[in-house]
Amino acid sequence: MYGPLIDELISALRCLPGVGPKSAQRMALHLLERNRPGARTLAAALEQAAARVQRCPKCRNLTEADLCVICANPRRDQGLICVVETPADLFAIEQSGSYQGLYFVLMGHLSPIDGVGPDAIGIDHLLQRLGDEEIGELVLATNLTVEGEATAFYIGERATSLGVNVTRIAHGVPLGGELEYVDGGTLAHAFTSRKRFS
Amino acid sequence: MYGPLIDELISALRCLPGVGPKSAQRMALHLLERNRPGARTLAAALEQAAARVQRCPKCRNLTEADLCVICANPRRDQGLICVVETPADLFAIEQSGSYQGLYFVLMGHLSPIDGVGPDAIGIDHLLQRLGDEEIGELVLATNLTVEGEATAFYIGERATSLGVNVTRIAHGVPLGGELEYVDGGTLAHAFTSRKRFS
Repeated sequence: MYGPLIDELISALRCLPGVGPKSAQRMALHLLERNRPGARTLAAALEQAAARVQRCPKCRNLTEADLCVICANPRRDQGLICVVETPADLFAIEQSGSYQGLYFVLMGHLSPIDGVGPDAIGIDHLLQRLGDEEIGELVLATNLTVEGEATAFYIGERATSLGVNVTRIAHGVPLGGELEYVDGGTLAHAFTSRKRFS
Repeated sequence: MYGPLIDELISALRCLPGVGPKSAQRMALHLLERNRPGARTLAAALEQAAARVQRCPKCRNLTEADLCVICANPRRDQGLICVVETPADLFAIEQSGSYQGLYFVLMGHLSPIDGVGPDAIGIDHLLQRLGDEEIGELVLATNLTVEGEATAFYIGERATSLGVNVTRIAHGVPLGGELEYVDGGTLAHAFTSRKRFS
């Protein structure tokens, strides 16, 4: 309709998550009508990032250096590893400022139905780290979904058998959550994990 | 947080309309984790389109050729011009299949408060076309907003003074619209423009 180049741009924009045909068209026309420098900057940033971003060999997080910023930081607690599913989860934990140790990013979760086994999410690499380094505690922060729980269970079992102290982040009623509107599964967790009132 | 390249990609993605910091982060991580070929394709498409897409010298629509596909098509009615505000409007009319003439794309509307006068939206160029070519009818299809109406009024006055037959697309109750839920302005239009029942 617009000509091959514009049509190609519209269809290329659809590789972005959450972008359908209408949004892609709006984005393409916006860039071409009003923000060509932005389009060029975005093209260069995509090209550079796609070419140079790789995984940190230690924690599997995305990085463009030899080691990611967290693994390379000597002030982080080197005896603490937190297991998360994705870099976005890691980012959320970092933003909360509640954790000062290292990470291990699975880049997914166990999902036998999709053919994702322990090796695909680097669990062998994690277990090797647990053997090689002096790890005082392994915090499991996978999501509270069926797959996340199964992944936490599997890693927990394997790590415990190596003599590592394994913990799981707490699940319960969120800050500001009103009991009336909290789902039953969360409430069940909150009751099962109740603590002595001090 | 992620390193300069990834941060740069996240901030570059924010030049897309409707993309905030959270969506930009999700897009960047999605591309880097799961779709590097898509990222490269998008980079190339952006680069190519930004470099080669220009305006059609006849109708001001976006095109990568000397003339846009519509102006270059000899089977379109050469005596009919439809004035629209944006390429997206043109696309919507084309999709409806209800119009077979040529177009003129203003790429905006008159807006004195933002310093957008008749020359900025190419009205001088349109009037020149009306003088040079054999135009039987000029259809005004600007939006039904204050600025769109003012633009239609201005172009209508100027074109009429050149002796051109000027029309405005109809405004009224949309297909499937229930009167109960149609706004008062639209209803007022529907009543003012009522036609003899045949």
